[in-house]
Amino acid sequence: MPNITITAVKGIRTAALHCGIKESGKPDLALLVSDVPAAAAAVFTTNKVVGAPVLVGRRHIQHGILRACITNSGCANVCTGQRGIDDALEMCALTADGLAKLSGDEVPASAVLPFSTGVIGRFLPMDKIRAGIPQAFAQLSNTQEAGEAFALGILTTDLVPKSAHASLTLGGKRVTIAGHCKGSGMIAPNMALPPQATMLAYVATDASIPPATLRKLIAPVADQTFNCVTVDQHTSTSDTFVLLATGLSGSRKLTASPDLAKFSKALLEVCDSLARQIARDGEGATKLVTVTVTGAKSPQDARRAADAIANSPLCKTAIHGGDPNWGRFVSAAGYSGAAMNPDRASCKIGNLTVFKNGQPTAADLAAVEKIMQQEKLAITVDLGTPGKSSHRTYTCDLSRDYITINADYHT
Amino acid sequence: MPNITITAVKGIRTAALHCGIKESGKPDLALLVSDVPAAAAAVFTTNKVVGAPVLVGRRHIQHGILRACITNSGCANVCTGQRGIDDALEMCALTADGLAKLSGDEVPASAVLPFSTGVIGRFLPMDKIRAGIPQAFAQLSNTQEAGEAFALGILTTDLVPKSAHASLTLGGKRVTIAGHCKGSGMIAPNMALPPQATMLAYVATDASIPPATLRKLIAPVADQTFNCVTVDQHTSTSDTFVLLATGLSGSRKLTASPDLAKFSKALLEVCDSLARQIARDGEGATKLVTVTVTGAKSPQDARRAADAIANSPLCKTAIHGGDPNWGRFVSAAGYSGAAMNPDRASCKIGNLTVFKNGQPTAADLAAVEKIMQQEKLAITVDLGTPGKSSHRTYTCDLSRDYITINADYHT
Repeated sequence: MPNITITAVKGIRTAALHCGIKESGKPDLALLVSDVPAAAAAVFTTNKVVGAPVLVGRRHIQHGILRACITNSGCANVCTGQRGIDDALEMCALTADGLAKLSGDEVPASAVLPFSTGVIGRFLPMDKIRAGIPQAFAQLSNTQEAGEAFALGILTTDLVPKSAHASLTLGGKRVTIAGHCKGSGMIAPNMALPPQATMLAYVATDASIPPATLRKLIAPVADQTFNCVTVDQHTSTSDTFVLLATGLSGSRKLTASPDLAKFSKALLEVCDSLARQIARDGEGATKLVTVTVTGAKSPQDARRAADAIANSPLCKTAIHGGDPNWGRFVSAAGYSGAAMNPDRASCKIGNLTVFKNGQPTAADLAAVEKIMQQEKLAITVDLGTPGKSSHRTYTCDLSRDYITINADYHT
Repeated sequence: MPNITITAVKGIRTAALHCGIKESGKPDLALLVSDVPAAAAAVFTTNKVVGAPVLVGRRHIQHGILRACITNSGCANVCTGQRGIDDALEMCALTADGLAKLSGDEVPASAVLPFSTGVIGRFLPMDKIRAGIPQAFAQLSNTQEAGEAFALGILTTDLVPKSAHASLTLGGKRVTIAGHCKGSGMIAPNMALPPQATMLAYVATDASIPPATLRKLIAPVADQTFNCVTVDQHTSTSDTFVLLATGLSGSRKLTASPDLAKFSKALLEVCDSLARQIARDGEGATKLVTVTVTGAKSPQDARRAADAIANSPLCKTAIHGGDPNWGRFVSAAGYSGAAMNPDRASCKIGNLTVFKNGQPTAADLAAVEKIMQQEKLAITVDLGTPGKSSHRTYTCDLSRDYITINADYHT
């Protein structure tokens, strides 16, 4: 774990603890607080079935200002009807109460964004959460340890916590961007401004950025990073990515380039790192795979073809086995629905071209096999159309461990 | 294996043998011959990358008349450019030669439909095929044993041969419909009249049906049966379903109802049985699963939602583990893109409703778990829209054996 966590952002404090939801005894309640009202924007899953926290969160984010994020793991609060909504609202109200006590400010429940991840179709154990939130407030801290605890507290089947950060100088002031995320299974985020894993991502900065500008930034960043990850193509009911700006770096307000472009680039790098960490820690994963599709008629076609390759169990198992069975990659692009000219299409494993002009190349299959066995693998398929669009999708292999994790996991 | 094979159809003879393509020594060359020019229709994969046999087959079927089908397994002859096309044409020419010698008729190569299934990106070992075809002619027979050999000769990773038949009386004459198919991995057929796994299906009848009528029959039948199967969502480059009518039953020409409706129903049953056999014998499968989606806005939406459930590795592993984790089924419908009203949606496992009106029901989860552990499983999701469209998809579970078969299989 790197030694920069979200608490390096001026104004951000965190805490995490085990309140009793997870039988394992691992942390299952995580609190993130901004000492000042922070400008905020968020994108949520586009699944038609959404968790109660998403329904509530979509309303709360409309104000563009947040004071806190409250997250439980172990229960997703999805398919839980009105009771689920009431529970998510209560989590927010309890958090707002804690903030009011802490700061003396009046804090509306709508300044809190709720997050839940875990099993679908169960009600939240509210007695445990009611007892846990005040305990979390008692532990709030801006130390690195508190940030590390937060990064652990949001996890479900993840093996490792996920962190990324960047720092830059804007108008003579040092600005930090730092974030954490979770996600291992039910991962194929497809998030959009209000109106999907569960992927939860929290990125904060102490730059000063108004909510309207954050709102413009967040959707394209999500689209180029988190929305490019697929572990199992199963877009969750609960995916949420929130971006907070405390403004406490002392930098001037960022609303236009060149400063905004500089910030935007750093933010993209932080989110890209988090996205790759999710793919690498996909359930049962042993490899990080980048599938790139080029020569597509449209960006949509490029995404469609890259996702088809990344989601095909035949491709994912070939990758797991280190088998240079490139016909699986080419044929997946072929059924994706993207426009394709097989006679002009090509396929590369790493930097070796294995298929070109409708035929196998003379590439040395032993060399290709060696590349296929690496832990970081790049697969490129050119669709052979006159178009110039491209897309890259981050994914992982499909292993026996994936089956074990998901078939032996009982609700 | 039932004792009715395709050789029960008057005029159909078959043979199969090992010509040397498969290292296992199993049969890899299968010949099917009609003693008379048979009316024929076929549907082929809609993958943009298609095998040379599909390119050739689409042209040959245009005549509406076939004398033979020649099939090799172990090599798919896909991504093989002009050499692949030349090889597929030579398979047809060699078969036509054999027929000409046998019958004394002049037989054009275009009266032969070529089929290849196996690895993509390899050239056919034509020397073995050239030696094998005359041997196959020497073994041609209308015995049940010959039919059984044919059903075995077309297999790749299948564990069992697949057969179905029906007999009916039309105008006082007994008519037989019988067929075989193969398919275990790379199975998500999406076939259409000429311009997808490899699923290969051969159905013959001795009813007398003109090519134009067969052509009208075949697409809707494929759409309601083979195109409803998904093992791994990977639509093959080579899927082909051919329908042959020898006319030798002595029945009058079938062109209109009620006889045509009667025949059509029987044909649908034969193909439905073959489709279910493919799903049950999916690579690594331990269960046959029927996913039914109801209450959809359109037939396309119903298919989209049913396919999303059937293709989600989270759903397939829950099914493998016998885990009543219905949230996975409901959430897969939610990301499918189909219109859905979660507050009016419902989910049934077998005949037990587990989710209704946006909330879990009081269904006994132990009873649901018992159903989940059965070898034949029905999952139903109602999308809760005012629409009345429905669709059923046949699939199987995802097991560790699937990973073993596909990760340890080296090209």
